[in-house]
Amino acid sequence: MTRIAFIGLGIMGSPMAVHLQQGGHQVTGHNLDPSRTQPLVDAGAAAPTIADAVDGAEVVAVMVPDSPDVQDVLLGEHGVFAHAKPGTLVIDFSSIRPDVTVDLAKAAQHKGIRLLDAPVSGGEAGALNGALSIMVGGSEADFAEACPIFDLVGRTVVHVGSNGAGQTVKAANQLIVAANIEALAEAVVFLEAYDVDLTAALDVLGGGLAGSAVLEQKRGNMTSGDFTPGFRIDLHHKDLGIVTSAAREAGVVVPLGGALAQLMAAARANGDGDLDHSALLRGVRRLSGRSLG
Amino acid sequence: MTRIAFIGLGIMGSPMAVHLQQGGHQVTGHNLDPSRTQPLVDAGAAAPTIADAVDGAEVVAVMVPDSPDVQDVLLGEHGVFAHAKPGTLVIDFSSIRPDVTVDLAKAAQHKGIRLLDAPVSGGEAGALNGALSIMVGGSEADFAEACPIFDLVGRTVVHVGSNGAGQTVKAANQLIVAANIEALAEAVVFLEAYDVDLTAALDVLGGGLAGSAVLEQKRGNMTSGDFTPGFRIDLHHKDLGIVTSAAREAGVVVPLGGALAQLMAAARANGDGDLDHSALLRGVRRLSGRSLG
Amino acid sequence: MTRIAFIGLGIMGSPMAVHLQQGGHQVTGHNLDPSRTQPLVDAGAAAPTIADAVDGAEVVAVMVPDSPDVQDVLLGEHGVFAHAKPGTLVIDFSSIRPDVTVDLAKAAQHKGIRLLDAPVSGGEAGALNGALSIMVGGSEADFAEACPIFDLVGRTVVHVGSNGAGQTVKAANQLIVAANIEALAEAVVFLEAYDVDLTAALDVLGGGLAGSAVLEQKRGNMTSGDFTPGFRIDLHHKDLGIVTSAAREAGVVVPLGGALAQLMAAARANGDGDLDHSALLRGVRRLSGRSLG
Amino acid sequence: MTRIAFIGLGIMGSPMAVHLQQGGHQVTGHNLDPSRTQPLVDAGAAAPTIADAVDGAEVVAVMVPDSPDVQDVLLGEHGVFAHAKPGTLVIDFSSIRPDVTVDLAKAAQHKGIRLLDAPVSGGEAGALNGALSIMVGGSEADFAEACPIFDLVGRTVVHVGSNGAGQTVKAANQLIVAANIEALAEAVVFLEAYDVDLTAALDVLGGGLAGSAVLEQKRGNMTSGDFTPGFRIDLHHKDLGIVTSAAREAGVVVPLGGALAQLMAAARANGDGDLDHSALLRGVRRLSGRSLG
Repeated sequence: MTRIAFIGLGIMGSPMAVHLQQGGHQVTGHNLDPSRTQPLVDAGAAAPTIADAVDGAEVVAVMVPDSPDVQDVLLGEHGVFAHAKPGTLVIDFSSIRPDVTVDLAKAAQHKGIRLLDAPVSGGEAGALNGALSIMVGGSEADFAEACPIFDLVGRTVVHVGSNGAGQTVKAANQLIVAANIEALAEAVVFLEAYDVDLTAALDVLGGGLAGSAVLEQKRGNMTSGDFTPGFRIDLHHKDLGIVTSAAREAGVVVPLGGALAQLMAAARANGDGDLDHSALLRGVRRLSGRSLG
Repeated sequence: MTRIAFIGLGIMGSPMAVHLQQGGHQVTGHNLDPSRTQPLVDAGAAAPTIADAVDGAEVVAVMVPDSPDVQDVLLGEHGVFAHAKPGTLVIDFSSIRPDVTVDLAKAAQHKGIRLLDAPVSGGEAGALNGALSIMVGGSEADFAEACPIFDLVGRTVVHVGSNGAGQTVKAANQLIVAANIEALAEAVVFLEAYDVDLTAALDVLGGGLAGSAVLEQKRGNMTSGDFTPGFRIDLHHKDLGIVTSAAREAGVVVPLGGALAQLMAAARANGDGDLDHSALLRGVRRLSGRSLG
Repeated sequence: MTRIAFIGLGIMGSPMAVHLQQGGHQVTGHNLDPSRTQPLVDAGAAAPTIADAVDGAEVVAVMVPDSPDVQDVLLGEHGVFAHAKPGTLVIDFSSIRPDVTVDLAKAAQHKGIRLLDAPVSGGEAGALNGALSIMVGGSEADFAEACPIFDLVGRTVVHVGSNGAGQTVKAANQLIVAANIEALAEAVVFLEAYDVDLTAALDVLGGGLAGSAVLEQKRGNMTSGDFTPGFRIDLHHKDLGIVTSAAREAGVVVPLGGALAQLMAAARANGDGDLDHSALLRGVRRLSGRSLG
Repeated sequence: MTRIAFIGLGIMGSPMAVHLQQGGHQVTGHNLDPSRTQPLVDAGAAAPTIADAVDGAEVVAVMVPDSPDVQDVLLGEHGVFAHAKPGTLVIDFSSIRPDVTVDLAKAAQHKGIRLLDAPVSGGEAGALNGALSIMVGGSEADFAEACPIFDLVGRTVVHVGSNGAGQTVKAANQLIVAANIEALAEAVVFLEAYDVDLTAALDVLGGGLAGSAVLEQKRGNMTSGDFTPGFRIDLHHKDLGIVTSAAREAGVVVPLGGALAQLMAAARANGDGDLDHSALLRGVRRLSGRSLG
């Protein structure tokens, strides 16, 4: 039994915290917006402040939207680093800029606190089913210590390098996923334009070298036009910003990444930010002067 | 038992013809370059001319590289349409321009000949194992008649529409595959630049929404630097030309397709035309000023 | 005084033919659509068929929209090559594919006919004012002979190489112009979004290294929203098709050219084909979810 | 006569400071790297610290490379805002992020200091000849007051809006210039591939709608292969980072801007950072597998 503070009880964090509690740990949740905290309150524990949540915790889990959120939660005057005891293990499940993670890890070290970056893939379904993919950056020892916790929320858990490496792999993940969605979207509009039997076509595409998790999981959204998220355009937009700036920082040229960042920005600018990222299909339709269906 | 002429006994056509023969059919092969014909000669039958091959055939299978090749084989003075008897079923396994297929189907109809476009996906391995994906355009009746033949060489066989539809789906296939390879290549160079554990990273990427047949089948080429084809850059370059011109023809805007056509052209212009298409990785390395490894 | 047949009396061809006549030449016009022929009829001469127009002509000028049109006019059963006498000098002012021009030049040679490709830049205003830029491909001798004619319709007349070279330079021209328009359009929407004084901004941009003929001539369209052509999106779309396919043919990688071809196609697909090419601005606004103004 | 402190005596700042002095002002220069300060020392005045330079100054001019440099110079412990007297007018000639300028203007206001952002275009030649284009953001009154100073270093001086607007226009300038250079580079390699007479072609291109300041000023670099800057790839790379992030911030989609940022990054990654930005030509040659000449 580990005492765990869980900061950020949103769509992802909430079910993850429940899994940790059901796994036998003593979980104290905290959320900036208290309206989300109900599930954990019902399940037994929630704290009104980060200080209260962190008090006595051996592990602090964080799952918030973006780099500035994590910075606030960890570095803020009333934040985790101000209240956690030395030796605490902070697991940041958020998807943020690798360079911010590196800086946070240095700040943690100054306080005698340990940090793992552990962004996840798999969406709400993965969180609900404890079936996330988790890409972990940090020390081997901290990773080993955290594995029992990761195993309660994830199915594929991989240690990919030192601090920041988890975020880097997550960025790569988001690049590949965006390319897959956009390519599928262009293919779908192309096939529609030629009056091909779309269901048959997607079947045969899925069975060969064009097959992918995206084709399998997102074809339904594209053929039905139901873009309930899933994973929102707004968040993928944020992630492609991370991809292009991190690539730029490292001197890596990503022509597809650059193009995808513009296309995702166009989706957002056209009001699709709250739709599932498979709504890139709507962007291809717009460019092609076609009905959004 | 069907009498089948098989025109085009290259890397793909040769094993396909053998499968048809082993399936109990009487196969007469023909190849423009006679050096390739040996396997079928050994197996029992090869013809010196298209006229000889087609003589008495109920089905004529064609597997040649590009649109002009199919036009020569079918429309040429000594070609299939000049010698095949009315009612013959021509199955064109080649990957060519959809509009050329449509024209060929019209020309066939004038001769009382039936045509199916049946481009395949799966590469040399798929041809050797009789495990190709086959996307078929043409009439329902002709498709039904050809199914026993398709089943000898393919695993996923789908009728996707009228003549040309098979080629359209193949073009969509090649767009998606190119996007997958390029995105993976950009991700790999990005991960290398950040000194991430590449094997671990590809494992976790493959387990989530970034997973794909390309990641599974091509990661070995990318990590080893062995780009023995497989499917050659030169052919994928031809296919992306088909994608962009067919999209243009239909008024479909394909920003990723357009970018990929340039990147594939760059690979070719840099002398990688005979390498596997996963060698797009070398292009990302060149753009990023990195050693080709 | 030279006897000149002028085939193609559209927006461009009509004033050009008048200039030639006013220059002292005997001009016989012909237009496929006879409704356009009135100006020349009024001015004194028009012929009902190509054969009639070409009869007795020393020079045949052609100004039609696209490659197939020129092929019809020159190679058709009732076309120029069938009726012109050996030694005739054909000047093709149309903007078409360089490889088509090369083929036409060969066909001309077989007939003992001489061909210059002489595409123009400068639009309707240039044609009206006899102030076109003319990029000429063909032999030095033929160019020298044609110069007095070119000087009646053009201000900048340059011999750039052998047959096809004129078309190649025109393609390069269209690539640069498209890039200039799109970059200006992106800049305008960017400046609008930041509430910058657009008139002042364009003034200062025009005075420095960002200055260009496009900025000078097209800023009015962009700030007023009046996209009366000028030069139509549909024609520039055709030209970017020539650019990308000619570049592809030559193994030249044109990332900007590829992107521009998609953006111009999007303009067309959204119904802007008949607007001036400066209407690329509308595409940037659409992508950015902004009012078309 | 105004007492002016000039911070940043590099390739641009040094001749600008001399122009101000020759215009009758009392100029005290300062440079972080003292080796550059010699011209002003010779001319009469240079200060060892910002504090000394600013002491008694009515105007503080700043010309340093990037956003963090300006932040250091203005906000640093020993910086301008710490030592300038209330009422001082700070003119920032540097090209930096518009949002940083906006923040700096707010910080200035807290100190009772006035700020104009006044980035320039025209390069070393413009600075030497007092012929820069200057795009100014800030209050009307401050602009009016600064005009006599601007007129000593600039030829086109335009007030484009409130603080940040100058930087926004400069970003737009850099977008357009990059597009012009890359398009010209693609055109040049395209023309070379077709063995067109390049000099003749550039003449005719320059005379029509493809004409631009870039074509005029940079064609020499491209045809000679001499890429002595001028304006360095590294700085243009920085500027395109500003363009893409500022566009992203404002929800403006810039497909060309995104592509250009990748191409400029590729130039830099291939070791061309210290060359003139016209060396984008080398990138097109690399992509096309051609000799760098």
